[in-house]
Amino acid sequence: MKTISVDIAIVGAGLAGLSAAEALSRAGRTVIVLEADERVGGRTLNYDLGHGKVVEVGGQWVGPTQRHLLDLAGRLNVDTYPTYTTGKSVAMLDGGRSVYRHVPRLSPFGLMESGLTLARLDRLARRIDVEYPWTDRRGLDELTMASWMRAHVHTRVARTMLELLIENVFACTPADVSLLHIVTCVQSARGMSPLIRTRGGAEDARFIGGSQLLSLRLAEQLGPEIVILNSPVRTIAQSADRVRVRAESIEVRASHVVVTVPPALAGRIAYDPPLPASRDQLTQRTPMGSIIKCLAIYDEPFWRNDGYNGQAVADRLAIHATFDNSPPDGHPGILLGFLAAGNARSLARVEESERRHAVLRSLAAFFGPRAQHPRDYVEMDWSAQEWARGCYSAHFPPGVWTGYGDALRAPVGRLHWAGTESATTWIGYMEGAVQSGLRAAADVLDRS
Amino acid sequence: MKTISVDIAIVGAGLAGLSAAEALSRAGRTVIVLEADERVGGRTLNYDLGHGKVVEVGGQWVGPTQRHLLDLAGRLNVDTYPTYTTGKSVAMLDGGRSVYRHVPRLSPFGLMESGLTLARLDRLARRIDVEYPWTDRRGLDELTMASWMRAHVHTRVARTMLELLIENVFACTPADVSLLHIVTCVQSARGMSPLIRTRGGAEDARFIGGSQLLSLRLAEQLGPEIVILNSPVRTIAQSADRVRVRAESIEVRASHVVVTVPPALAGRIAYDPPLPASRDQLTQRTPMGSIIKCLAIYDEPFWRNDGYNGQAVADRLAIHATFDNSPPDGHPGILLGFLAAGNARSLARVEESERRHAVLRSLAAFFGPRAQHPRDYVEMDWSAQEWARGCYSAHFPPGVWTGYGDALRAPVGRLHWAGTESATTWIGYMEGAVQSGLRAAADVLDRS
Repeated sequence: MKTISVDIAIVGAGLAGLSAAEALSRAGRTVIVLEADERVGGRTLNYDLGHGKVVEVGGQWVGPTQRHLLDLAGRLNVDTYPTYTTGKSVAMLDGGRSVYRHVPRLSPFGLMESGLTLARLDRLARRIDVEYPWTDRRGLDELTMASWMRAHVHTRVARTMLELLIENVFACTPADVSLLHIVTCVQSARGMSPLIRTRGGAEDARFIGGSQLLSLRLAEQLGPEIVILNSPVRTIAQSADRVRVRAESIEVRASHVVVTVPPALAGRIAYDPPLPASRDQLTQRTPMGSIIKCLAIYDEPFWRNDGYNGQAVADRLAIHATFDNSPPDGHPGILLGFLAAGNARSLARVEESERRHAVLRSLAAFFGPRAQHPRDYVEMDWSAQEWARGCYSAHFPPGVWTGYGDALRAPVGRLHWAGTESATTWIGYMEGAVQSGLRAAADVLDRS
Repeated sequence: MKTISVDIAIVGAGLAGLSAAEALSRAGRTVIVLEADERVGGRTLNYDLGHGKVVEVGGQWVGPTQRHLLDLAGRLNVDTYPTYTTGKSVAMLDGGRSVYRHVPRLSPFGLMESGLTLARLDRLARRIDVEYPWTDRRGLDELTMASWMRAHVHTRVARTMLELLIENVFACTPADVSLLHIVTCVQSARGMSPLIRTRGGAEDARFIGGSQLLSLRLAEQLGPEIVILNSPVRTIAQSADRVRVRAESIEVRASHVVVTVPPALAGRIAYDPPLPASRDQLTQRTPMGSIIKCLAIYDEPFWRNDGYNGQAVADRLAIHATFDNSPPDGHPGILLGFLAAGNARSLARVEESERRHAVLRSLAAFFGPRAQHPRDYVEMDWSAQEWARGCYSAHFPPGVWTGYGDALRAPVGRLHWAGTESATTWIGYMEGAVQSGLRAAADVLDRS
C-alpha cells in the first residue's frame, strides 16, 4: 500500500474532478485524483474512428450559454464546430411520417398544446431557486411528471412530445421523476428553450477531437503522478484534522476530499465515521438514468444528399431520437440514435444482434434503406458501465428534492461533493460537471 | 486474511440470513454467515431493561397469519404474549382530541370515506400477483400514492387517516412511493385488514424475551464458528464454479452465496464481474424508510389505570402513533412512539434533548402530564445505523416495480437474494425476512 500526502484528494477523473484539480493546482494546492476506471473522462468517452478521427459514445454537445465548459475548452485550446442541422427533419409519430423543416405535420391542436405545455413548465421553472429547490412550496415534489401530464396535457400529440422530451433529455420516463426535478433542471439551464433547441441550445456544437479531449488534456496537464487510474476508492475516513482516502493499493492523506462521482455511486464508498442519515439516504434516492447510445457509421452521410439533417423523432420505434453525428468534415457519415429509458432497459436484455437490428430498422424507417447497412456499428450501454451505472445523470423521484436536497452540496466535515448532479447550472450536462468542480474547489479554498 | 471453504456463504445475520443458514444446515450443507455489525438480528434489537427484562428498539410484532415467523419461534421455544389493548385509544386529529373504544369522534363522512378508501385499495391489491407484481397492467406504478389520493380521496379526515397509515406502515410519505408498491405490500399481507389491525393483525403479539431472541437463538445453535460478526462484506467475486466473498479479514469460498441485506445496501458491495444493469439499477431505486423509534420508560404503566390502552394517533404532533410497549407483566410501563417519514427526517437534525422534548410533549398530549417524566428515555434512529440505513424496509418509487422488479429475486449466476424486501409474504416484516431466507435456501438446494 503506497501512501501519499497532499492538500486535497479528489475522487473521480471526470470533468468535475479534473476541473476541481486544475483550479486547486492553480491556487497552489497539491492534489491527487483517484479514478476507478482505466481512463479519464467519466461519462465522456471518445471512440477511435481511425485516421485521427473520433466520435463520442458519451456526453458530447456544448451550447452557447454553457460558459464554464466553453471557458475550459478555450483554456485547453479545444475548438468547437456546429452540429449538422442543414436540411429536413423526420417525425414518425402516431403512425404517420412527416418530413419537415420547422414544424412536423401533426394535429394543430396537438402542436398548440405542446407549445403551451412547454410554456407552462417554463413558468413553473422560473420560480425555482436553483440553489435551494427544496424551498419551493408549491407541492411540485409530490407529483411525478406523469401525474402532472395526466392532469394538464390532453392531446395525444402533446403527451407524446412531452414523453419524448423527458426520455431524451432526462433518460427516464415521466413516471420515474418528480415534477420539481424537471423544472429545477429546466431552470438550471435558464429555460426550456435552451434545453430543447439544437441550434443555439444544448446541442448547438461539438468539440473537435471529441468531448473526452477536454479530460485527456486536463489529465495530461496535471500529469500521471497526480491522476491515478485503476484505483476505485473503497473507504474514506476522516478525523478532526485530516482525511484518509483508500483505494486497493494506494492511500491518500489530505486535509479535504472532493467526491465527484454521482450520489448513487458515492453511497457505495464506505465512510468512517458513517455519513449522516440525510446524506446517506440521499444516495439511496437518486438513481441514474438508462441510456444506450448507438452509432451507425457509413462511408458517406448519404442522408445529407437526400436533404435530411439527420434529426428524427419517433414514438413507436426502438430509437426515439437521432442526430447526424459525423466528424467536422462529414466523413465518415455517422447517425446517432438513443435507446432511452424503457427501451434502453428492455433492449439491454436481448442479444446484441437483435438490438442492432432494431436500431438499424429504426434508422431505415427515418432515412431510407441505406441506413440498414452501416460499415460499422458501435453502442454503449451506460447502465452496464461499472463506474457510471447509468447516464446521462441522476433523476430525483418525488420527495427527494424536498426531503434530502439540502444534503446534495453540504460538506460533511472535510468531505465535499461535486459532479453534475450537484451543479446549479445545467444539471446533468458537462457544463454542470465543470461548474460543480469549480464550486467545490472554491469551497475547499474557503476552508483551508 | 483467513480463508474458509463451505458450501454456501450468507451475507447478513438478520432473520433472513439466519433462517437460510438454519435451513441449509439442516439439509446437510456447510455454511458461513458474515455479519457486518457486532451483533446478530439485523433490524431487530433488544434493549436491556435490567432484571432479565428487555424491550425492542427494532421490529417487534407478530401476527397470527405470519406462519413462517411463528413456526420459527416455535422451533426456538420463543413464546408470544398479546399486545396490550385493554382500554381506550386517543386520536388527536384536525385540532380535536377524541378518546374512544372503537371509532374516533370524527366527521362521519370522513370516517365513511376512510373505510371506502381502504376497501378500494384492498380491491386494487387483490388483483396483484405477489410473485410478479411487475406484470400488472393497470398503470398503478405510474402514480405516487399522493397522486392517487389527490384523485380519489376528498375529505380531510380520510386523507389524514391514509397519510398516517402510509407513514406508520411504510415509513415514508405518500409522495415517496408508488401506488403499485403499496398494493403489492397489502396483497403480500393478504389484505388491508391484517396489515392495519392490532388484535388479529400485524401488531397482534410480541415475543417473550424480545424479537431479537429469535436471531440470538439461531446464532447460538449455529455457533460462533459459523456466524462471524464484525465482518462487512466488501467484494463478491464469482467464477464458473464458485464464489469468493471477502470481508476485511476473512474470505469465504463457496459454491453459492445468499445476500440478505436490503437492495440499497447490497448495491454497496463490489461485485466481480459487475452486476447486470437491471439488478444494479434496482439497488439505486429502492430507498430505505425513515423511522426513529422512541421509548419512554416509567415505573408504572400509569395510562392503564386511567383507562387508556396506550394507543394513540395524531396528525400535528411530533409522534403520530403510539403503543403500550411494556413487558408481559406490565413493569416497567413503556410507551412506544414512532417518528416516521418527514418527522423522522426533520427531528433527526435537532439536538437529542429537543427531540426528546418533542416526543414527551406528544405523549403528554395523549396520556396526560405524567408522560412528561419517564425514568428513562431510549431512541433509535435507524437511518443513522450504518448496517441498516433506514427502516422498516425499502419502499419502491414509481416505475421501479415495473422497470426492475424482475431483478429483485432473480439469481445472478451463483448469487441469490433474500431479505424482507424480496419476500412474497408480508414484505417488509420479520415474517417476510424469514420467508425470503427459506425461499433462497430452497433455491440454492435446487441448484446444488
